[in-house]
Amino acid sequence: MPSVSRKGLSMPQSPIRKLVPFAENAKKKGAKVIHLNIGQPDIKTPQLALDAVKNNNLSVLEYSRTEGSESFREKVAGYYAKHQINITASEIIVTTGGSEALSFAMGSIADNDDEIIIPEPFYANYNGFATANGVKVVPVVSKIEDNFSLPPIEDFEKLITPRTKAILICNPGNPTGYLYSKEEIKKLASIVKKHDLFLIADEVYREFTYDDKEHYSILQEETLDQHAIIIDSVSKRYSMCGARIGFLVTKNQDVIATALKFGQARLSPPTYAQIAVEAALDTPQSYFDDVKTEYLQRRNILIAELEKIDGIKVAKPQGAFYCIVELPIADADDFAQWLLEDFRVDNETVMVAPAGGFYATPGLGKNQIRIAYVLDQDSLKRAVHILGEALKSYIG
Amino acid sequence: MPSVSRKGLSMPQSPIRKLVPFAENAKKKGAKVIHLNIGQPDIKTPQLALDAVKNNNLSVLEYSRTEGSESFREKVAGYYAKHQINITASEIIVTTGGSEALSFAMGSIADNDDEIIIPEPFYANYNGFATANGVKVVPVVSKIEDNFSLPPIEDFEKLITPRTKAILICNPGNPTGYLYSKEEIKKLASIVKKHDLFLIADEVYREFTYDDKEHYSILQEETLDQHAIIIDSVSKRYSMCGARIGFLVTKNQDVIATALKFGQARLSPPTYAQIAVEAALDTPQSYFDDVKTEYLQRRNILIAELEKIDGIKVAKPQGAFYCIVELPIADADDFAQWLLEDFRVDNETVMVAPAGGFYATPGLGKNQIRIAYVLDQDSLKRAVHILGEALKSYIG
Ligand SMILES: Cc1ncc(COP(=O)(O)O)c(C=O)c1O
Ligand SMILES: Cc1ncc(COP(=O)(O)O)c(C=O)c1O
Repeated sequence: MPSVSRKGLSMPQSPIRKLVPFAENAKKKGAKVIHLNIGQPDIKTPQLALDAVKNNNLSVLEYSRTEGSESFREKVAGYYAKHQINITASEIIVTTGGSEALSFAMGSIADNDDEIIIPEPFYANYNGFATANGVKVVPVVSKIEDNFSLPPIEDFEKLITPRTKAILICNPGNPTGYLYSKEEIKKLASIVKKHDLFLIADEVYREFTYDDKEHYSILQEETLDQHAIIIDSVSKRYSMCGARIGFLVTKNQDVIATALKFGQARLSPPTYAQIAVEAALDTPQSYFDDVKTEYLQRRNILIAELEKIDGIKVAKPQGAFYCIVELPIADADDFAQWLLEDFRVDNETVMVAPAGGFYATPGLGKNQIRIAYVLDQDSLKRAVHILGEALKSYIG
Repeated sequence: MPSVSRKGLSMPQSPIRKLVPFAENAKKKGAKVIHLNIGQPDIKTPQLALDAVKNNNLSVLEYSRTEGSESFREKVAGYYAKHQINITASEIIVTTGGSEALSFAMGSIADNDDEIIIPEPFYANYNGFATANGVKVVPVVSKIEDNFSLPPIEDFEKLITPRTKAILICNPGNPTGYLYSKEEIKKLASIVKKHDLFLIADEVYREFTYDDKEHYSILQEETLDQHAIIIDSVSKRYSMCGARIGFLVTKNQDVIATALKFGQARLSPPTYAQIAVEAALDTPQSYFDDVKTEYLQRRNILIAELEKIDGIKVAKPQGAFYCIVELPIADADDFAQWLLEDFRVDNETVMVAPAGGFYATPGLGKNQIRIAYVLDQDSLKRAVHILGEALKSYIG
């Protein structure tokens, strides 16, 4: 029997996947599971996007243009203009989710065994795209004590080798909720220029910032023009995860031309989804205001409730809708499984994401979990209550 | 300025891409261009698929399951059963087009510098997926004189090295239109078993067979169970290219588990498209009968008209909707460009795909073009007439 590839064997599993059977089993036994583990928002998709698809009058569902139609990309450029990002249609490639933009970016700038430096903890699927592309992830540690702010620039510098091709950041961060400041972006700008690297910024949570903090995009940093690649997505922005539409954005035309070749091979991004997103781009600001208010309230409740629990450490998120919590336990994988298998409050339990999977350095994050606050405030309160009770019982 | 990857530089361009500006220019100058170069069918998408999307009542456009929902895959398994392919839901992964299934398959079975043997001429994007995955394409020549039937099995055997991981066929073939016989599949089965390789069959044109020939799938060949991987797609089957839904199908659970890890990294295939395809699976046989009758008539007209032209050679297609034509010229790239730039009949010209891009061996196919017969019969007739007149003028 022929065997699968070594690359395939080393493809990482999702950090949550192992827990799924335990969650299913808990439900089978009649328990309610509150999901703190997933990044699938419960927010309604803008009605105008849903309607655009319902009212479409295609009779042949054709391929679209590989990079998305000119008119669509012009509209996307208009979206960026509203965010002080000065971009033309020819600097945008429409991708099948931010996921594909990440994959195209890595393939376009890095060869087999090349290295990309990423502050950890980071979005776990970066590992998957890196492995698929033969690229080595080099982690630089960011700390819960510092709220996961940018590690000292010397820490990056120490890791740069002739094989380093890029620094990849997520801003605001999944799983950290940290929002990089303008000053931090400027520090990154100078190091990538000094060493002639790319700076890739995953800005899919751009809109989700709190406490009057403002997002500063790497493409607002004008000196970065040829170095900057933005990964973007409509998944969370418009609660359109199932659309599978994202963007690769860069002023570097060599990168555009190269990513386009990856795009041509896979022909085109999904057509229905582009109809939905083209409409979604007209979503009024009031939608975002409402959504942000909702997330802000959720965050505030989450943090307030968590702070009532003894012995835990929380990095207060300023963006996105995730939060890392350090627990007074040794092994969050074991704890998460135990929650699903053995612990109930009024026949309810919670599912959390053990944070180890968000670190590349073995052993880090073993006592941390990630909480996604994408569910209603009552459930959040109940979930944190259950977590607190569970910790007492687990430790005791 | 940081530079793109060597891999990116070596990513192939679509064989047609170079001609696009010339076609655009011809149109700008007021000429009509008949497109023989594209595989985008003009056939109407089944109404029940279009309606399913128009009548959807999603309020949150969520991620779907990575591998497609259980119920959807069960319905897909039902489709295979009708084609004498005995498959369960757990042997299917729903992908973003056949394109993604190809990429997952290559990544799952081959490491950097591993080799996959492919009869040439072949679907040009195999090159792109191979390059993206660091895999080397090893071509084995099939000949227009033999109608592009399977090359002698000794020709394959000569090319097998310790790095060979698979043989990849397209059946029926794009660009050849050739339909492999049961005997040919059995020959391939014995060689892959002898050398412990995978046999990947791109069967996206399964339904499109003519002259009462029947398609024989590699998964009908039961001894192949652990070796066989089918690449499939709804793009052409239901004229749903823009859906971006395909399938990776295999009874080898190691391959399923591995491909699933690639799938998890990109989260999920598009949600709207899955709604459309789930409905499309109920398309009545009469739809296919009509479509096949239409393509058969087109093929017959195309071949009859081509045979009136002096000095050309045609491989009569028995499947799909492509046909390779050998012309009495030296350089089909130049001819194709000249058609767009300089030649008109009643202010009309044709765009063809030079076949060189479908061969991996340099120099092969330079005097061949690929014609896609996905347009109405009148246009086809006019197109071949123009081609004939053009040849006279070009040669003369
Ligand atoms: C940080 C980050 N980047 C990229 C993605 C990919 O999202 P998509 O492919 O749905 O655009 C996600 C999804 O959760 C994410 O959290
Ligand atoms: C032979 C073959 N395989 C695969 C594909 C990929 O199609 P899709 O990604 O639309 O399923 C095509 C498209 O033309 C094709 O001709």
